[in-house]
Amino acid sequence: MKRFITIKDIARELNISVSTVSRALRDTYDVNKETRERVLEMAAKLNYKPNFNATGLAKRNSHNIAVILPFITNYYFSTVITGIQEVAYENGYNIVLYVTNDSPDRELSIIDNLPITSLDGLLVSVASNSDAIDHFEEVMANGIPIVFFDRVVNNMEASKVMQDDYNGAFEGVEHLINNGYKKIAHIAGPIGLTFTQNRLKGYIDAMTKHQLPIHEEWIIHSGFSQEDGKKDAEKLMECKDKPDAIFAANDRKAIGAMMLLKSKGIAIGKEIGIIGFTNDPSSEIISPSLTTIAEPALDIGRKSCELLLKHITKTYFHPQEVVFPGRLIVRESSVKES
Amino acid sequence: MKRFITIKDIARELNISVSTVSRALRDTYDVNKETRERVLEMAAKLNYKPNFNATGLAKRNSHNIAVILPFITNYYFSTVITGIQEVAYENGYNIVLYVTNDSPDRELSIIDNLPITSLDGLLVSVASNSDAIDHFEEVMANGIPIVFFDRVVNNMEASKVMQDDYNGAFEGVEHLINNGYKKIAHIAGPIGLTFTQNRLKGYIDAMTKHQLPIHEEWIIHSGFSQEDGKKDAEKLMECKDKPDAIFAANDRKAIGAMMLLKSKGIAIGKEIGIIGFTNDPSSEIISPSLTTIAEPALDIGRKSCELLLKHITKTYFHPQEVVFPGRLIVRESSVKES
Repeated sequence: MKRFITIKDIARELNISVSTVSRALRDTYDVNKETRERVLEMAAKLNYKPNFNATGLAKRNSHNIAVILPFITNYYFSTVITGIQEVAYENGYNIVLYVTNDSPDRELSIIDNLPITSLDGLLVSVASNSDAIDHFEEVMANGIPIVFFDRVVNNMEASKVMQDDYNGAFEGVEHLINNGYKKIAHIAGPIGLTFTQNRLKGYIDAMTKHQLPIHEEWIIHSGFSQEDGKKDAEKLMECKDKPDAIFAANDRKAIGAMMLLKSKGIAIGKEIGIIGFTNDPSSEIISPSLTTIAEPALDIGRKSCELLLKHITKTYFHPQEVVFPGRLIVRESSVKES
Repeated sequence: MKRFITIKDIARELNISVSTVSRALRDTYDVNKETRERVLEMAAKLNYKPNFNATGLAKRNSHNIAVILPFITNYYFSTVITGIQEVAYENGYNIVLYVTNDSPDRELSIIDNLPITSLDGLLVSVASNSDAIDHFEEVMANGIPIVFFDRVVNNMEASKVMQDDYNGAFEGVEHLINNGYKKIAHIAGPIGLTFTQNRLKGYIDAMTKHQLPIHEEWIIHSGFSQEDGKKDAEKLMECKDKPDAIFAANDRKAIGAMMLLKSKGIAIGKEIGIIGFTNDPSSEIISPSLTTIAEPALDIGRKSCELLLKHITKTYFHPQEVVFPGRLIVRESSVKES
């Protein structure tokens, strides 16, 4: 099988970063003339062809935007998509969705098979343990701008739109403390994810600020499902020193925990306070209703698409990083007397 | 602007149907030799070019499947997608999602801009009031097979995968009757949709079979949201002759109705029985839990994709129609004594 020359080869030959090669080929504002010339020379020497998998040149006016993201079947991502759609449609763009199922392999396969001749830009939320940075650089080297949202790539120069997980978690835990809860547990997401770490840090800092002890057994890492929340709560109920409140990394876990506690006849709010993260519609439906930190999913979707349209229409538009705050919504599950 | 010759032009000239032209060009089993020759002659005469918007010939081994559907943000469609993904991934295919937001205009725009050179097949659930039959025929004439699911096109020869809305509704309403409810209302979907009609007919036939009266004011058509269900229930509570049970066209409407009734202190089950349709996760979370007819969404997704793969790999595979039954799940909302 014939191997195509990629920007990785150019970077290796010149002993510079893939990102610099990508930016040099795109002629962005921040690459000096000399570097750019060396890159172009090496590209010619290696017979580098842009549009690695394409049958023609990028049209730049296909009015199609591709969205690559881990899941579409949860409330958070489907709301982000709604925001993306709103802005895309207002501006005459269609969107095309690619779902990685949070698999780095599938993500690579999707990127390498993108019909980039019929795309104007890319919105990406990366898979856990994504291994695709060079591939994203390659896409950008081909003149296709990328905006990352929610699960962003740290060491890439591109626009990024995120939410403030740290402060959301901090505010949520402080709300529990202000309502008289002192022994607060945290049922968290998988340990490797950036936003798991940020929410965990928000929890730890709020507890520390109020000089409350943190027991190691009160912090449980598992998955994001209702079932995971149920199991986590079961473990917490077996602790010698039982917590009097639970901060869950998302609403589905919080709801799983509530259902377990309800089945054991434990009064939610009065005996054990609970707070989630997302503002999933279920959080309003369950009884008692669930206090939560609302994620700015719609804003994230809209802003990501707005930034991408700017990158599509203006070659020299500087990458931006935008962080949206969460919003505490107090309901019944975190109030002792109701 | 140059207008491309389409199969519609060929059909008009020969005074035959678009579908026949499409099938003649594809050389399917059911077009006679003479017709096929007339179509090919006319195609040559008009200088008809297949791949109306494509830059090359269909590869037939891109291993990409496109899915066009009205929504992804509800539980039903996102579960169908999960089923499609399972089968696609097992067989080494990627999927690409296009969302119409239930708009016929957007649907047309999506079809006319499909990158058909990088697609092996299409899975479609049409928009309400879809006007795209000829466009779908055109796609099929280009050798791209289509399988329709859930919201299918009636007068097109293609494989179709549906659920049994009529019998699901009939069984649900009969369950209410068997549990002692007699004055059953139906809060339905928009009147124009086929599945609204099928569920309405199931309701009417079950009531008629048991010789129960149907009041016109007990049948309300509105949208699919929780808010719609709330408003519908409010109207029902203003009826002179109040119903003692509600059959909702989906779980979100049922939940909206339950929240309205709960806010008025009406005991669900005991005073008013309620049944939904979908088996949305919320139906288990709400208290009392909601009796519902589970939709075979995963089966529909899997079967649609299986059929499409057969069409992709076997040119002479006969179109099939598959109907999956719903499944009654009895919970608390439809039981008088609990």
